[in-house]
Formats: sequence, C-alpha cells, structure tokens
Amino acid sequence: MCAKAKKHGVAFRPHFKTHQSHTIGKWFREEGVSAITVSSLRMAQYFAADGWNDITVAFPVNILEIELIRDLSSRISLNLLALDPEPLAWLERELGRPVGIFLKIDAGYGRTGIPSTDMRAVDACLAEITRAKKLRFKGFIAHAGNTYRAGTRGEILAIHETTRQRMSELGNSFKQKYPDLVVSIGDTPGCSLAENFKGIDEMRPGNFVFYDAMQMQLGSCSLEQVAVVMACPVVAKHPERNTCIVYGGAIHFSKDFIMTRGVQNFGPVVRLTDGGWSAPVEGAFVSSLSQEHGVVSLPPEFLGTLKSGSLLGVIPVHSCLTADCMRGYRSLEGIHLDHMSGEDPGR
Amino acid sequence: MCAKAKKHGVAFRPHFKTHQSHTIGKWFREEGVSAITVSSLRMAQYFAADGWNDITVAFPVNILEIELIRDLSSRISLNLLALDPEPLAWLERELGRPVGIFLKIDAGYGRTGIPSTDMRAVDACLAEITRAKKLRFKGFIAHAGNTYRAGTRGEILAIHETTRQRMSELGNSFKQKYPDLVVSIGDTPGCSLAENFKGIDEMRPGNFVFYDAMQMQLGSCSLEQVAVVMACPVVAKHPERNTCIVYGGAIHFSKDFIMTRGVQNFGPVVRLTDGGWSAPVEGAFVSSLSQEHGVVSLPPEFLGTLKSGSLLGVIPVHSCLTADCMRGYRSLEGIHLDHMSGEDPGR
Repeated sequence: MCAKAKKHGVAFRPHFKTHQSHTIGKWFREEGVSAITVSSLRMAQYFAADGWNDITVAFPVNILEIELIRDLSSRISLNLLALDPEPLAWLERELGRPVGIFLKIDAGYGRTGIPSTDMRAVDACLAEITRAKKLRFKGFIAHAGNTYRAGTRGEILAIHETTRQRMSELGNSFKQKYPDLVVSIGDTPGCSLAENFKGIDEMRPGNFVFYDAMQMQLGSCSLEQVAVVMACPVVAKHPERNTCIVYGGAIHFSKDFIMTRGVQNFGPVVRLTDGGWSAPVEGAFVSSLSQEHGVVSLPPEFLGTLKSGSLLGVIPVHSCLTADCMRGYRSLEGIHLDHMSGEDPGR
Repeated sequence: MCAKAKKHGVAFRPHFKTHQSHTIGKWFREEGVSAITVSSLRMAQYFAADGWNDITVAFPVNILEIELIRDLSSRISLNLLALDPEPLAWLERELGRPVGIFLKIDAGYGRTGIPSTDMRAVDACLAEITRAKKLRFKGFIAHAGNTYRAGTRGEILAIHETTRQRMSELGNSFKQKYPDLVVSIGDTPGCSLAENFKGIDEMRPGNFVFYDAMQMQLGSCSLEQVAVVMACPVVAKHPERNTCIVYGGAIHFSKDFIMTRGVQNFGPVVRLTDGGWSAPVEGAFVSSLSQEHGVVSLPPEFLGTLKSGSLLGVIPVHSCLTADCMRGYRSLEGIHLDHMSGEDPGR
C-alpha cells in the first residue's frame, strides 16, 4: 500500500485502528511512514507514547474529551474532524495549543459528514475556522464505507470513482484560497483496487494490514494477503450433525458475519500448518457464535481427523474488531505483539 | 433470583460471565451466595482471587488449558464440563488434585452436549469417571439457550418445561446410584419466567443481573429491571435524515441486534436523567454500528434538543458482550465498578 501511494504521488497516512500495535506501527515506520490516522483520542495517546507525532483522529470531535485533546495538542501535531461550526467554536474557546481541522465530507456513504455539494455548510465551518486563532484548516476528509456494501469489484471501483470525483471537485474549488489543503480518502476496498487517485492528496486505509474474510469476499484481497487467523481449540464434536464446538466466541471474534450461499458465516476454517495455514477447507466455517462458544460446521471427513484439543484456524470476518477483542497477537515465530487494548484496558 | 431459587428449594449458582466483577460478586455474597458459575478458566481465576472457592466452569473442558486447571484445582473446589470420554481420560492422567465433573447435556438447544436420551454416551462418560481417581461425578448440566429463539413468553415456558422434564428424567434414572447428583439448568429467560423447577437441583442464570434489550424483547424482564445503560456522546447531527452519530460503536457494544418492526435495532435510546434514565424514546434507536460510530435514528423533535456533546443513553442489546467490551462500569453514584477485562486485559 505504501508503494501504491508513492506510485500515485499520494501521501500515505495509514489508519492504525486495525492493528492498534506499537510493534506493527514500527514496521510502518521502517517503510518511511511518519503520519498516521487513528479512530480515537485514546489511540492517539497510545501512538504518541511510541513517538508518533503527526496524528489525525478520524472521528468527529467529541467535545467531552477536551482534556485528552489539550494534552495531545500540546505534544504532537494533532488533526481533528468536524462537520459543523458548533464544536469548532467550542474548541477555539477551550484549547490551549492549536490543532488542525479536517472537514468531514460525505461523498456518498451516508453515515456522517457534510454532503460534498453542500457549500453553505462547508463555508459556515470555514468561516468559524477563519475567525479562530487555534484552528488550522487542513482539508477535506472522506471515508467511502459504502464500498463495503458492493457486490463486485466493479462496484467498488465505481464507488471509488464517484468519491474521487466529488472529493477532487470539492478540493479544486478551494485550492486557490487554501493551496496547502489536503483531500484525503481512505477505505481499504477502494484503495486496494483502484488505480485512479487524481485530485486526491492523501490515502488512509487501515484494514489492508491484515485483511480478513469480508475483504476476501469483497474481492479487495486474495487469500494469500490475509495476515491474521485465530487458533481455536476443539472442545466438543457432534458427528451426528457435522459440527464441532471451538473455544472462540463473540467475546473473541465480535459478531460480524458474511453471507455464504445464503448462510451466515462467522469465519472460514483453515488447517493450521507449521509455516502458517491452508486455504479454507471446503464446507468448513463458523456457523454461529455465542459468548465463548463457536459452532463450526464442517464435512465429516474433516471432523473425523479432529480430537479434543485440536487447533482449528478461523479467518476473522472483520479483523479490526477481532484484534480489538483479542488484545494481542502471536506471530508465526511465536513472538507476542502488543495491541493497545491489552496494554490500556480501560475504555 | 436468589429469593426465587430459595422459594423453589433449588440451589443458586449464578453465572458471573455477565458482570465479571468482583464488586458485583460481593453483592451476591451478601445475599448468601457461595457457589458460582463462570464461562472460562481465566474467569474462575479472577473470582478465586476474590475468595470464591466453589466454581463451575460451564464450558466443555479445553485440555490445552491444563496449567490453569491444575492451578485452580489445587486451590478451590472446581467443576468442569465434559461430554465425551476422551478429555476425561486425559484429565485423569494429567491432573494433580481431583475436580468435579458435570456431564454437559443437550436438552433441546442443539448447540452442544450429550442428547438427554443418549444413555450410551452418558454411560461411556460415567464409566470413565468411575475408573478415574481424580474425577468426581457431580451431575448433569444443561443450558436451554433455545429460549433465546422464542417468540413469546409462552414459548419460553414451553422450552423450559421440556428442558425441565428431560433433565429431571435423566437425573431420576441415576439418583439411586448417585444420590448426591445435581441436575443443573440455567438460562435467564426460563429462570425468570418459569415457576416449575421440580426435579431441578440447581439454577445458574447470569444475564438477569443486568438484563438488556434482548431480554426485554423476549419478555424475560420489564424495562424497570434493566440495570445497565451506555452513555454515548453525540458527535454529529443529520436533521436531513433524522439521525445523529454517537461515540459508541462495535468495539463498545459488540454487534448483537434485535429486529424491531423488521428493522435492525442495535439498542433502544433513552434520556439520561439525574437518577437514572427514561423509558425508550419512541422511534429512537441505534440503527447501525461501525468500529467507533453508532448511527442513531430518532424523531426530529428529539434530535432538535441535542447538541454536540449531549449524552444519549442506549440500552445494550446483549449486556454480557457490551460489559465485556467496556471493561468496567460507573454506578449512578459515580463509583467505578471493576470488570475482569479491565483488570486482566489478556485473552
């Protein structure tokens, strides 16, 4: 992804909300990355503690966290997101040191943001920023989360293209007044598949660091690009209905699922090998999750090879949530890798 | 629930997987509770550290956790679950001190357990236990999780009644040989609504400590009995589509939902008040969740009263998972209550 950003002349500000790991962050630093994206102020603190000093918190500013904002803005170059003047006026009143402000733009996803054509709303925010002494206008930011609803790679590319056009038009209409403004986009499906980033200044994908079963289904990645798997011990076998129970439930995976042939799939099952894992075993998947139990549906010939205590691999449906639940990683070399939730357990 | 167990002459071994809190555990102790249920060996360790010394781990034994089993069995009275002879033979070989064994019975749920009429499988396990020196047969345990699929209170009661009959028949056929055997059941919907516990020796509900939106929808509890709510700050408003965005996403709630009038509902919205919270606001609910964002659908007149930083209350759909995600509680008096995941962040 780093190479792709370079190739397209786009700044790379990867989202660290997927891995939330100092160790994995260091691997990015080795690739020359110096600016990052996170999804919470707590996460910004976690990475600031490891020497990251240019951080965008890609979540609309929560004014109740002013203490954290004050602390961070006094130490690092901090960018916040806003989409209306109210919290901007409030920040100006409450802040000590200046922060960068990205205007959060809705380029078609429909979750949150100023609609990309709503110039009145953009102008109202810019007026507030212009009046302010502690707010620096950084640019426009969008997350095309609608790519996650796409049925084909073509649809992902079409959504990316719409997002790109809307964002670059918006950027162009303000670049004369703000020559340094940054137009930033970031979804993993779009950034993985697209080759047109004209008018885009920055990309912020995050999930690509691991990918997962959802991204495989979307077509954003191949099986070989998936970099995490859960090792789940078998605790019970039910040959009469071709299932087994693994220790691995909703508190370990979270509860996202994909639909496979009309059936809920909470994770394709793979065989663990010495050097990694196999391709998904045909017909083997987690078919339901309760708090600690995973029910695995699997073919009888595979079930027949399993014993109590056998380890099955499960490709997470949504690696960001699973990593947040698991609070740490073990590399294939057996090395523990940190996750913020394992170091700083509070919310 | 404690009073109900007493009234029916049934031992009360509440499940602590919902609250996972030393402080809340102490409230149970004040009610005379001395034996508990947990869903993992780590959780057993957490409660053993607070003086609980009679613990059932209501999850099929995972032989990969033998170190934890050895540690706990040397310190407390520990009961494990099994449903086939293989892990039993293994435990006998590996254990230092004896443990109690409950046979996990499937009384109709269909997730895991020996079918309640499969005498051959029961006998095979009992033969293994009889041969063993370090295994003590404790009884039969079932979880009627199928009550969670019920559409009406009548259906919950019917499932409870089937479970009760099957478990009590099974118990009766072994009580001559094992006069001390315990027949144990435990789902919150059944234990909340049923009044017939004939043939049952022990109940293990857990969720009732808080209840939640799912239990309200099932009819297991009233709104007044729901004891947890999430306080979520408003970070963006979208009057054009009657939504607002709160800081409260899948990493805070997990992702269970209920269906309300054909629509996914990730949590009914309430007004927070000085002493607690209001009834759900008509038409206000969390309509989708991403990693940190919650999208709240709400009527325009309610949206009009909200500002950036206003706190909305959200009744969790599944309080066990939400508590595990949040890793701590704040009482209405502003006191922090511990949760295992906030003290011991590893998995």
